This record gives sequence, structure tokens and C-alpha cells, in this order.
Amino acid sequence: MSRIAVVPGSFDPVTLGHLDVIGRAAGLFDELHVLVVHNPGKTAMLPVPQRVSLIQESVAEAGLPGTILVTSWSVGLLVDYCTEVGASVIIKGIRSQVDVAYETPMALVNRNLAAVETVFLLPNPANAYVSSSLVRQVAALGGDVAPYVPRAVVDFLKRDL
Amino acid sequence: MSRIAVVPGSFDPVTLGHLDVIGRAAGLFDELHVLVVHNPGKTAMLPVPQRVSLIQESVAEAGLPGTILVTSWSVGLLVDYCTEVGASVIIKGIRSQVDVAYETPMALVNRNLAAVETVFLLPNPANAYVSSSLVRQVAALGGDVAPYVPRAVVDFLKRDL
Amino acid sequence: MSRIAVVPGSFDPVTLGHLDVIGRAAGLFDELHVLVVHNPGKTAMLPVPQRVSLIQESVAEAGLPGTILVTSWSVGLLVDYCTEVGASVIIKGIRSQVDVAYETPMALVNRNLAAVETVFLLPNPANAYVSSSLVRQVAALGGDVAPYVPRAVVDFLKRDL
Amino acid sequence: MSRIAVVPGSFDPVTLGHLDVIGRAAGLFDELHVLVVHNPGKTAMLPVPQRVSLIQESVAEAGLPGTILVTSWSVGLLVDYCTEVGASVIIKGIRSQVDVAYETPMALVNRNLAAVETVFLLPNPANAYVSSSLVRQVAALGGDVAPYVPRAVVDFLKRDL
Amino acid sequence: MSRIAVVPGSFDPVTLGHLDVIGRAAGLFDELHVLVVHNPGKTAMLPVPQRVSLIQESVAEAGLPGTILVTSWSVGLLVDYCTEVGASVIIKGIRSQVDVAYETPMALVNRNLAAVETVFLLPNPANAYVSSSLVRQVAALGGDVAPYVPRAVVDFLKRDL
Amino acid sequence: MSRIAVVPGSFDPVTLGHLDVIGRAAGLFDELHVLVVHNPGKTAMLPVPQRVSLIQESVAEAGLPGTILVTSWSVGLLVDYCTEVGASVIIKGIRSQVDVAYETPMALVNRNLAAVETVFLLPNPANAYVSSSLVRQVAALGGDVAPYVPRAVVDFLKRDL
Repeated sequence: MSRIAVVPGSFDPVTLGHLDVIGRAAGLFDELHVLVVHNPGKTAMLPVPQRVSLIQESVAEAGLPGTILVTSWSVGLLVDYCTEVGASVIIKGIRSQVDVAYETPMALVNRNLAAVETVFLLPNPANAYVSSSLVRQVAALGGDVAPYVPRAVVDFLKRDL
Repeated sequence: MSRIAVVPGSFDPVTLGHLDVIGRAAGLFDELHVLVVHNPGKTAMLPVPQRVSLIQESVAEAGLPGTILVTSWSVGLLVDYCTEVGASVIIKGIRSQVDVAYETPMALVNRNLAAVETVFLLPNPANAYVSSSLVRQVAALGGDVAPYVPRAVVDFLKRDL
Repeated sequence: MSRIAVVPGSFDPVTLGHLDVIGRAAGLFDELHVLVVHNPGKTAMLPVPQRVSLIQESVAEAGLPGTILVTSWSVGLLVDYCTEVGASVIIKGIRSQVDVAYETPMALVNRNLAAVETVFLLPNPANAYVSSSLVRQVAALGGDVAPYVPRAVVDFLKRDL
Repeated sequence: MSRIAVVPGSFDPVTLGHLDVIGRAAGLFDELHVLVVHNPGKTAMLPVPQRVSLIQESVAEAGLPGTILVTSWSVGLLVDYCTEVGASVIIKGIRSQVDVAYETPMALVNRNLAAVETVFLLPNPANAYVSSSLVRQVAALGGDVAPYVPRAVVDFLKRDL
Repeated sequence: MSRIAVVPGSFDPVTLGHLDVIGRAAGLFDELHVLVVHNPGKTAMLPVPQRVSLIQESVAEAGLPGTILVTSWSVGLLVDYCTEVGASVIIKGIRSQVDVAYETPMALVNRNLAAVETVFLLPNPANAYVSSSLVRQVAALGGDVAPYVPRAVVDFLKRDL
Repeated sequence: MSRIAVVPGSFDPVTLGHLDVIGRAAGLFDELHVLVVHNPGKTAMLPVPQRVSLIQESVAEAGLPGTILVTSWSVGLLVDYCTEVGASVIIKGIRSQVDVAYETPMALVNRNLAAVETVFLLPNPANAYVSSSLVRQVAALGGDVAPYVPRAVVDFLKRDL
């Protein structure tokens, strides 16, 4: 039986922590959809299409195994996307214990709404603490973000921001 | 000796988790004041009077025991209300460990300011994870919130929003 | 309506943190039973009757308000004691977030078994970190435990151990 | 590609919380091995073969989907078993945030030793707090454990202990 | 070897919790820089120069030992300031476990960017729960903040706000 | 002013996580005492003198800067050692948030007993999860512990156990 998993996030921008979790999930499920979820209530650093293409470029460069689609979603609930594409699993990386407390309510709602199960994975501890907001903060103040993001993001930030 | 307890919250809207905690508190103290606290710095989904009437309707329908008043407060400190009505206890539900860390500082301030003690209760674990913000999020995206809120809120959201 | 609350613990020995929680609980409920629960699987520093009398002496010296009984229990479940004396509430102090996680399962079982509700109270932060095991550890190595336990315990440890 | 996952535990005895996690894992992977791990350093309530047969009976009665094997392991590392049967995934239920902190180190070691990934799943919150040690404690004191364990365990405890 | 440590914060306003941590850090390092970091994205109660002078006044009145400089920084990364003045240590007080989770990512980034080590200290538990945001909240609603802030802040709030 | 810091632990055996924290502490204080604390109530894998010499060998091989003494202590309170050698600081690594909750009570007692301050440091996240008990567990079951301990410990375990 073929199983599709969704890795949702704002990916503003994608980090090495994200890429690590995407790689692990790719080894566990037959098809992976990396989904850039647009949150209209939050100011973003990068427009959604830019975030999608930076993930695509980074996934390609990392040579991750299996079928990995990268796309975006802004129409409705995350589980609506899952239902539409036949995904039964949502993937979340655990950066810290606080993360699990924060993600649990929505994970249980997604289970109730559409029988989609959330699976928590441990990132490589060496970059488990890296988040997009940390990268944005450091980049905004002129710090070097190369240890935290894929090469494509480093290049983009140098060139375009 | 008769003891009055206050259950404060934004209740935007009241959830089954709130109703569960209100019911437990009603069994522990002689008189209960469910207090809709208006936070002027936050955008709300429902106006305060609407939140009050939805709680009143839900408490009535649930047939909770004892004397339960529902009202609102926007003048000053929560403990000012407690002092005014002679309440010596504030009730808080514990959704997660993070909740306790978040509520502890204000609970200690309320003790210092007016000798009002905060009592933490465990909700039914089946709906302990439900919060108003989760309900607002799901409702905004068109998801079904019936498993999380009293019937009065389901009806109201269908009819008026 | 008169309400009876039980404050269970091993109290080996009673600490200023315990006494603080007992005092707060005494202000919230009409009758308080401080219950020394004997855990046969654990090696104790003090025999149960000694623990009971040290609590009695400390409660008396502190001049705590209300009706406070001190006794022990080793026959069966804590809720069996509650049922026997008509108590509807169990009191637990929250020393840290980890405490809440540790106490939650048994609190929910006690609710299921006998409709006894567990109420969590915040100790005075100045001695919230004090525990019996910390006191035993410090006392065993010859350290001064006077800042952590009632005078009766200090005297007893000097005289008898 | 067919994927095998292992659900390790002491299962002394199996609980409804375990059964819930086993059922969810059965929906995510092609073959599931429920593995009773014998810890020689801990005193057990039930002998290992008894624990295995209670899981088998409970899994059968629950009518869980897919291929589920129940067996035991006491020879070496958990990942040795995984390697032997070709499993690439270990399943852990998250009862509380403390659980994740406790399981993280061994999960990272298992990844290092044998590239076996640990996947964390959320149990149904209604019985997320149930643990084998809680069941043993309640049963030892004569309390009713029927709300926490499968019928086979209730019957066994009544009949044989 | 002489070591310089930086205590960064928004100090809006300085609290007794801050002053306690500053005093402890002053005993551990040869020179201390209390640094008011201006966060342009957040609305503040007090202008930065006012925050600096309230800390200066409070440090002087408390008679803290050693060399303590108070200044502000709004140009770039915190580690840029550290590099400029030759500081190798950043000091953070631990109010709760959630604090540590929140501070860890930036602490690791500061280590990577400039080999500046973050040192976590425990405040006096009696005022560990006090934060600037709590003080602002209580002050805004007319509550007495004297138990939480140095005398200089009490005087200032009475006179100028 | 010269400052002496103590890094206490059971070090049974020393791990790369310990060595990382020792190295960071060596950069912060003028003299470092790594202290093997013998806990008579716990069964150990290695005798105390063996633990001391493995730390000495590992510290030498790592080429850590500054004055680092390695010794043991089994006579009384940790702060008695600190007082004896004139140390004003105790160093603790933070492996997880649970660690901080666990260490806080004793840290506050040590402050009360002898004005010794406890300083928490973050290990390198890549080996922050490694503990002696994890190493003992893996070694006992025949797993490879080379990624977690200094070379001296690997050699010793191969040769002598």
C-alpha cells in the first residue's frame, strides 16, 4: 500500500533543520509533499513562490531519496489538502519539548477532522535548534546564516535581500 | 463559611474544555463567577456581551450544579473584581505543563495584591487540548467545531458568522 | 455545604513547603486531613507515627486556621480514605512543571475511581523547591536544614538522629 | 516498498493506551512487531510469555488492521532485533512532554547504531495518561483497572492474581 | 585573566529579578555590562535612555560589587557588542524551564557567530517569577508594583506615568 | 581576582558531553576542579579511581586550556569541598529542560549553605543528549559507544570489561 505524507510549514526560509526532517520522512513514506502554508496574519520575509523554489532547489541539491513534491496551500484547512491528495500522515519535527505541547492540539484536531495522523520525528540534534525565525533575526542584523540554511538560501539572501 | 470563586477567561468563544472546568469548580465552591475579561490589546472574534450570553446558555443547558453567575470585567485588575464581590479563589484549568508556567507569575501577583489564591484544576483529558484560539482557527478555515464547543456556540457560529 | 480536603504525602519529614501548602488549603476548605501515606516499597528516614506527630506539632506552632486533622493511611487506595471520611478533594502543591506531569495520571485515576477532584496549589516561591528528599540528603551529609523545615523537625533531627 | 515497524515496551501489562498506539501504527506501516522487551533489572508483575499472550489476545479482540506480530526480546539491543527482522522504524507513544525528553537520547542512539528512525505518535488524549505502572499500582491496592486495560487483562487479573 | 560579561535585556523596566541576576553575575566576572537592547518591533513602555538611567540608579542604590557599566545597543547583533568590548560571556537568568527552551537557540547562534558563551543563572526563587511584562501589566491596571521593582522604578512610575 | 569552579558528577564513565562542558568551563574560570562524587547508594560500573584517571587522560588528550584538576569526594556535602578549596562556582551542563528542574533545588541549597553559585552551560547540541547511563546501557548490551565517549574510555571498555 502506498502512503503519502505531508510536511507542512511556513518555510520562511527553509532551514537545514527542515531539510533534515524532510530527508528522514522521505525514507519512511512512499510520497512526500512539502507544503508551504501561507499564514495571511503573519508578515513574511519571502513571498510564497520564492519559498517553494528555494525548497525545490535545496531538495534537489541534497539528493534526497523518493518522490518529493513541493507546493503551497492557502485555501483552507491543512487536512483539506491532505484529503485532496490522499495523504494520511502529517510530519512534524520536534525541536524541543515546548514544540510538542504547541503542536498537540492541532494534531488532535486534524485527526478528528479527517483521520490524518501526525507523526513526530527527531531532527539531527546538531541543527535541531535552528528555526526560520532565528534565521530571519540573524539575517536582519547582518549575521552569517550559512551554518543554518541550505546553500540555495545563502545565495538568495546575498543576492536578493 | 461560604466561598466564592472566579473563573476568568476571554471565552472567545466558550469551549467544552471551559465548560468542563466550570462544572468541576461549581462542585468545589459555593458560588462561582464566570468572568469574561476583555483584553483591549487583542482582536476578538465575538463581542463581550455575546460571549457572556453564550456561556449563560451553555451553563444552563449543561445543568451545572450550584450558583453560577456569568458576567464581564474590563475596568481594572482581576483581583479588584474579586475584592468587590468577596471572592477568595481564582480557578484555572491546566491544559498542559506550559500552561502552568504561563499562569504562575500572575497567580503569585494576585496572591500578593489581594490574598486571592489560584486553584489549578485538571480538565477531562478528552478535551483538555481544546482552546478558544484553536476553535477560532478551525472555524475561520471552515472546519467543523462541533466536537469542541457547546451546542449554543455551534448554532451561533452557523447563524451569525 | 461543608467540604473536606485531604493533603496526602509521605512527609518524611514535613517541610516548610508542605506547611505552606497546608496553610493555604486550610483557608480554602472547611476541614483538612493531612494524611501520611506509607509506601511499603520505599525506605523511610522516619517511622510513620513520628512523621504524624512532627506535622501535628508544626501545624499547632504555625497557628494555622480551621479544622486540621493529621493521621496516616496504609490500608489501600488514597480514595478509599477519602470515601471513608467523606472528602471530595485532594490537595497537591506544584513545585515545578515536572510535578504536574507526574501527578496528573493518579489525579485522573482518583477522579475515575471515586469522583475525588485534585486541586493544585502554588506554594510560596521562596520555598517551592524544598522537598523531603532534599532535606534527607542534606541532613544525611551533615548540612543545616533549618531553612527548610519547621522548628519541630530541626529539634527532632538534632536530638534523635 | 514494504516497511516494518517495531513497537517496543515492557507491557506489564498492556494498556488501552498501548493498544491505541498499536492501532495507529498499524495504519501507518505495512508490518508491525509488538515487542515485549524484558528488563532484567526491574521486578515485573507478569512473566514475559504472559504479557505476550495478553497483547495477542487484545490485538485480536480489537480487530486491528494489517499484519501484527507479537513477540519478545531479551538478547541484546533493540536495534539488533530491528536489524534481524528488517525493521527501519521504532514507534513510541507520547504520553507527556516529559516522555519525549526521556525517550530522545535512546532514539538518537538507535539512529546512530543502526539507522533505525523513531517515530512519535500521539495517543487518544482520553487514555494518554494511562501507564502500566499506574495500572499495577491501582491493581495492587484493589482498585478497578477496567477503564485502563483491555478486557483480556481485566479477566486475567481477576482470575490469576 | 580579566573576563567581561554582558547581561542583555529590554529592561522595560528593570525588576528586582533582573537586579538579583545582575548582582550574582557581578560576583562571578571581573566586569559586567548591563545592556539595554532595543527591539524596534516591539512597543515599549519606557524610552531606552530612561531604562538605562533607572538601571544605573538601582545598581548604585543596591551597592552591587565590582565594575558594572550600564549602556544600550541598537546597531546590530548582540555578539557585535560583545566583540567590540571584548566580552566572552552572556548572562541569562532562568525564570522557568520554558525560558531555557526559549533562550537556547539564540545562545547556540551566539556561540557559533562569535565564540561567546551563554551562562544561565538561577535568580532568587522569591522573585524568579517577576518579569518586565508582568510589571507593565500590573502597572497599567493601577496595581502596586513596589514588591517587584527597585525603588527608583516605583518612584519613576508614580511621578512620570 | 582568581576564581575556582567545580564540575561535579558521577562520571561513570566520562562522556564527550562531559568533556565538552569541562572545556567550556575551563575557558570561563581560572581554575577548574572536575570532581568525581561517589554516591554510596548507587551501584557503579567503574570504581572511583578508575573514573578519575579516565577523566585525567581524556582532558590531557583533548588539550583543554587552563588549570584543570581531577579528583574525587565522598566525605560530605559538595559545598564542603568547595569551601575547602575556595571554589565559588559549581558548573552544570543542561542536557534538557528536565535537567534544569532536577538540578534547581540542590543549586539553591548550595547557595544557601555556602554562597556557592551554580552556573548552567549548554553543551554542544550534537552530543547534548549523551549521558553516562546511556553509555552504560549501550555498552552492557554490546553496542558501540565510540561516538559518545573519549578514546580513553573506548579503550578501557574494550580492554577491561
